[in-house]
Amino acid sequence: MSTVAVVPAAGSGERLAAGAPKAFVNLGGRPMLEHALDGLRNSGVVDSIVVAVPPNRTDQAKLVFGGDAVIVAGGADRAESVRLALAAVDDAEFVLVHDAARALTPPSLIARVVAALRSGHDAVIPGLPVSDTIKAVDANGVVLGTPERAGLRAVQTPQGFRTDLLRRAYERAAAGGFTDDASVVEMTGAPVQVVDGDPLAFKITTPNDLLLAETLLERGA
Amino acid sequence: MSTVAVVPAAGSGERLAAGAPKAFVNLGGRPMLEHALDGLRNSGVVDSIVVAVPPNRTDQAKLVFGGDAVIVAGGADRAESVRLALAAVDDAEFVLVHDAARALTPPSLIARVVAALRSGHDAVIPGLPVSDTIKAVDANGVVLGTPERAGLRAVQTPQGFRTDLLRRAYERAAAGGFTDDASVVEMTGAPVQVVDGDPLAFKITTPNDLLLAETLLERGA
Repeated sequence: MSTVAVVPAAGSGERLAAGAPKAFVNLGGRPMLEHALDGLRNSGVVDSIVVAVPPNRTDQAKLVFGGDAVIVAGGADRAESVRLALAAVDDAEFVLVHDAARALTPPSLIARVVAALRSGHDAVIPGLPVSDTIKAVDANGVVLGTPERAGLRAVQTPQGFRTDLLRRAYERAAAGGFTDDASVVEMTGAPVQVVDGDPLAFKITTPNDLLLAETLLERGA
Repeated sequence: MSTVAVVPAAGSGERLAAGAPKAFVNLGGRPMLEHALDGLRNSGVVDSIVVAVPPNRTDQAKLVFGGDAVIVAGGADRAESVRLALAAVDDAEFVLVHDAARALTPPSLIARVVAALRSGHDAVIPGLPVSDTIKAVDANGVVLGTPERAGLRAVQTPQGFRTDLLRRAYERAAAGGFTDDASVVEMTGAPVQVVDGDPLAFKITTPNDLLLAETLLERGA
């Protein structure tokens, strides 16, 4: 029951304003992507790794992150990068799709997702309760409604799938639009199971997020 | 057009595990609540402040936070504390309801909410785009659906209202259940306008949040 991890890392990181593609932004002296790969390696449940990087960074990435990881040129958006990375996956029963920007994701969370796959779930995503109230709004910012907070989860990665299910889902899906891989699978009607996420798996999107990650690293996260 | 700020600060802060009611937890040498009150005072748009604290802390709170703030004993839940604080509000055209746990809320955000009230909106809340995908789940953690992320906002405080509207809404509302004051107003059918929130207005709920707040304060936030 082999497991491959796919990491779409071709995004620009505009909101970080750090002057580099997001996965290459420095975090405690090393690129964010390298922290994310360490988590996958240390989980003990990942057999191989495929990383999609900006097309003009493949040579650099092979030098920096190569070794056990396969580097492929990413696409114009996240979904396209996942497609290109999946095409480089030979044969694995399970695939994890993981954000490089969730650089501090603990190995224990990764192991929890794979354990749920092995126990028979075909699609497994980590999620946490939301701390802010969430509102649905129209284009003018007028509130349309307040979904009950207790029934919401803020979802993280890695998201895990039976490889054949994720491949089929991506073949059917129209280009772009969705914000996570589970959405693509949901469109096929397959059930998706949420398992407990981890606060350390937060996505580094804003300068505040980067500051928190640096502080946590200094304190030994 | 006077504006009163109401701060329900009677919560336990269990998730912070800091051994004190949340509003009294130390943040950079001062209670969280004091930071929140500073933001309100420095906004230049708040004429008076009413704070609801744990009933066994009213004497302490009068010493520490008194002066220009009216201290009242809070209730069993957030909604009850808001009701008790509203009862201590004499006469004000607008009321802001603000979380003590959003200790670093910038005065500029508070001023933005009041400006929108003065421009004619009867209910105004600050909100930010969500960075994680949000899923609706059932009681077993199975995904029910993925609301489109572009139409979602994570809402913050202060939430601002015409005082008469908020009073009427609370009179009609059943006890408990809702997670923010705008929800109570939405149930009356009144329109609620979202204005831009601010990353610094994040709610300090978890130990990671507290660490980020401390780090931001050290760096001069």
